[in-house]
Amino acid sequence: MAINIIVAGPRGKMGKEAIKMIERVPDFNLVAVIDRKNDGKFLNEITEESDAQVPVYEDLAECFQQIDADVFIDLTSPEPGYKHTKLAIEHRVRAVIGTSGFTKENIKELKELSNEYNSGCIIAPNFAIGAVLMMKFSQMAAQYFPDVEIIEMHHDQKVDAPSGTAVKTAEMIQKTRTTKAQGHPDEREELEGARGAELDGMHIHSVRLPGLVAHQEVIFGGPGQLLTIKHDSMSRDSFMDGIKTSIYKVMELDRLVYGLENIL
Amino acid sequence: MAINIIVAGPRGKMGKEAIKMIERVPDFNLVAVIDRKNDGKFLNEITEESDAQVPVYEDLAECFQQIDADVFIDLTSPEPGYKHTKLAIEHRVRAVIGTSGFTKENIKELKELSNEYNSGCIIAPNFAIGAVLMMKFSQMAAQYFPDVEIIEMHHDQKVDAPSGTAVKTAEMIQKTRTTKAQGHPDEREELEGARGAELDGMHIHSVRLPGLVAHQEVIFGGPGQLLTIKHDSMSRDSFMDGIKTSIYKVMELDRLVYGLENIL
Amino acid sequence: MAINIIVAGPRGKMGKEAIKMIERVPDFNLVAVIDRKNDGKFLNEITEESDAQVPVYEDLAECFQQIDADVFIDLTSPEPGYKHTKLAIEHRVRAVIGTSGFTKENIKELKELSNEYNSGCIIAPNFAIGAVLMMKFSQMAAQYFPDVEIIEMHHDQKVDAPSGTAVKTAEMIQKTRTTKAQGHPDEREELEGARGAELDGMHIHSVRLPGLVAHQEVIFGGPGQLLTIKHDSMSRDSFMDGIKTSIYKVMELDRLVYGLENIL
Amino acid sequence: MAINIIVAGPRGKMGKEAIKMIERVPDFNLVAVIDRKNDGKFLNEITEESDAQVPVYEDLAECFQQIDADVFIDLTSPEPGYKHTKLAIEHRVRAVIGTSGFTKENIKELKELSNEYNSGCIIAPNFAIGAVLMMKFSQMAAQYFPDVEIIEMHHDQKVDAPSGTAVKTAEMIQKTRTTKAQGHPDEREELEGARGAELDGMHIHSVRLPGLVAHQEVIFGGPGQLLTIKHDSMSRDSFMDGIKTSIYKVMELDRLVYGLENIL
Repeated sequence: MAINIIVAGPRGKMGKEAIKMIERVPDFNLVAVIDRKNDGKFLNEITEESDAQVPVYEDLAECFQQIDADVFIDLTSPEPGYKHTKLAIEHRVRAVIGTSGFTKENIKELKELSNEYNSGCIIAPNFAIGAVLMMKFSQMAAQYFPDVEIIEMHHDQKVDAPSGTAVKTAEMIQKTRTTKAQGHPDEREELEGARGAELDGMHIHSVRLPGLVAHQEVIFGGPGQLLTIKHDSMSRDSFMDGIKTSIYKVMELDRLVYGLENIL
Repeated sequence: MAINIIVAGPRGKMGKEAIKMIERVPDFNLVAVIDRKNDGKFLNEITEESDAQVPVYEDLAECFQQIDADVFIDLTSPEPGYKHTKLAIEHRVRAVIGTSGFTKENIKELKELSNEYNSGCIIAPNFAIGAVLMMKFSQMAAQYFPDVEIIEMHHDQKVDAPSGTAVKTAEMIQKTRTTKAQGHPDEREELEGARGAELDGMHIHSVRLPGLVAHQEVIFGGPGQLLTIKHDSMSRDSFMDGIKTSIYKVMELDRLVYGLENIL
Repeated sequence: MAINIIVAGPRGKMGKEAIKMIERVPDFNLVAVIDRKNDGKFLNEITEESDAQVPVYEDLAECFQQIDADVFIDLTSPEPGYKHTKLAIEHRVRAVIGTSGFTKENIKELKELSNEYNSGCIIAPNFAIGAVLMMKFSQMAAQYFPDVEIIEMHHDQKVDAPSGTAVKTAEMIQKTRTTKAQGHPDEREELEGARGAELDGMHIHSVRLPGLVAHQEVIFGGPGQLLTIKHDSMSRDSFMDGIKTSIYKVMELDRLVYGLENIL
Repeated sequence: MAINIIVAGPRGKMGKEAIKMIERVPDFNLVAVIDRKNDGKFLNEITEESDAQVPVYEDLAECFQQIDADVFIDLTSPEPGYKHTKLAIEHRVRAVIGTSGFTKENIKELKELSNEYNSGCIIAPNFAIGAVLMMKFSQMAAQYFPDVEIIEMHHDQKVDAPSGTAVKTAEMIQKTRTTKAQGHPDEREELEGARGAELDGMHIHSVRLPGLVAHQEVIFGGPGQLLTIKHDSMSRDSFMDGIKTSIYKVMELDRLVYGLENIL
């Protein structure tokens, strides 16, 4: 099965690695790239990391008219990403969108559009399959273990705490977990903050240290036992596996799916 | 909802704790126990750990005739356990069977019998819900991560290695995993056994130390990421939660289910 | 080497296990016990758990006059514990004191007394050798890794957070660590408490879940690496090993040592 | 304190990063590099990664004559490394040698030479301070916990098992541990290799998975407790910290020290 692919954002960090991945997979065939500039040039002229002579377009609609593609991949930013996704659906080119930051209205609208055109689309704010499985399994486990705490660990250059993934995990758990205030009812913090952040009775702890990359463990406790689900993200390589899986999956879809957890 | 319960094996380790658990749960009502001896006595006469005046029977059929029960729990050994399960199904008393060691033929036969009588039954060789979820999640994850190793850790009084749970986990993973020889093709053990046991290309490592109870972690690796699913069993309390859940679940069943993973 | 031992507090949880331990070790010989009541009786008359016919005394001074002992073990409470320690030193009976809660003045005074009498004494608020080594190693590691976070985990019946051991570990680390505000300078808690408690720039996180016993990990981070020191306390058995080691060590001492870390 | 430094091996992986590190530390001053070729050129002419105009020498003796240096760093291979170390000692230039593979005779000879010249030298086969502390702490802990198992985990491109670090850790533990056959005396492997490799009764397990980098945990078990010492090496950055520490330490030495564990 040869899959012809267009990539938007070929000079970004993710875009560069996506192109390398596509060049490695025998089934995949890069046929064009979409860039903000450089219209009419070739990929090997705009980046050192590929010597592929595939054409560069600034305008996606034009590209779709001239190039026959099976899958469009967007690794840009919310604004162009949204416009591109719409165009792909309207042209019935299946789309894999790795751009995060779409609003709920955006997603709703795109969902309706894809239904209208019967065009497959995957929008995934997180392409690390392991992270998505961690969240999914946590949601399943919470039915049986209402007592749960989340420890997320990141390098000390991360500014916000807790991480977006930790909050999303807690929100997914909320849907299956019986709400419960955890810990001893008379619990007392001798040092403020010791018990971490709280979200609906669950506790979330954020560790920041040099040497860490991006890690999270979700710990469920019950009488006499613990169940722990842990994800370690060591490098961007993990995202490429998710994009690859999504390309194969989107070929079987005729509607829009939001979140990798819904295709795994 | 009051559930009337009969327990077989009230003087064994598991039986004693099951009775304590039943006495703690408001919905549950212990109405009789089945013992190898002591027919005609009362529970409080045969064990120090309960002061309940529930009758003791040696014969389950006789007990079913005289006592109105919703659920029968068996915590004995394979031979009486098998006979008891058959009788429970034939009397259309729902059964929760915690006895391990049934043969495949036994299970097949009991399954057919329960279909014939439309009588609900749960046979579970492992009642620790966390352990069952660990195996189930591992099976799911193996679809996306063919590279997996299992580390199981037990106290140093355990004679066999690897543990039954580790082997069962590997067998469950086998069903979804693409077979693959893991590690480097030219891999070389400088000290024999370093890479652990092998089952279909997966590696299993058994750690034995004083201070450990019963622990297992299943580690999946992919480019740039790791997904780890870990279960720690600290005490027999974990089994009681599984029996409790099974009692509620079996009330909704009209057929036989083998393995807790199929009702979770 | 036969060591004759007196135990104070033979009916408490720790006392009972200490007596069992003493009965198991061939070198050890229980010669008397000190109880608040039961003067003149024998140990087998006041507890079900021993059938040793060793005499019970209410008064330690009297006991020392009548019974020839090498080591006195106190497992009572601060007030009698302090009085007993003083008496043991004055009678030149080596002492192993497992009673926590002594004031700094108490300890100073007892230290001077033991110098005066050249009498060996070990006062240990924590007898788990593993926990003491965890603290000691953490103190050593902090010289090279000023970035450190502590995660302590306990069962959900624990009321206070963080644990005394976590605070003590941080205080020990303080002595060798270059003070440093950890994490990103612009760090921002989106959910209050996410970054845990702070002690001199170090962060401490307290997890509380059923199924946990008593665990702590100290994580040091530096560019490209992590060093983690973890202690899991599974049962009171861990304390008995520390008492046993202390009995042998105190036989070689002629002064007072406070804290197991100073004899390991 | 300005420290003038010469680096041998400036085009190797370690050499490149060492030069970057030296350029970042205000106290350090790169004054020359030693290369197999390129005599007479400047560093910025032989590597893209530095624009420093420091002279390149092929001959270390000549370099020492013309350039005034405090510390010589060798990151080459055993043969030139040995020759360079000898020259540095004879010229009384302090040396930090990161080249592994010296024979015991080499080391003995260099030790004697450094004694003769009173010249400080550090030879370190492993510059990751965390790994060295892990080994050192393990050696200390083994005095109290004779039951120990080692789990080392590496990426699946590693050919040999167990890792050199695991074997070295076990050998260091051997020096303090009371020899003991661990596990149950009747222990039985149902699958061959499950209990891992054995070294003097200790068990070593090697895990190989994509996504792993280089990790090792040493687990000590005693009645009711576990003590775990773990090191995660995420990138080569960890070595640079060790080289930096060694540069400061060697300034205070007037003899040869083998192994970072002896200066920490």
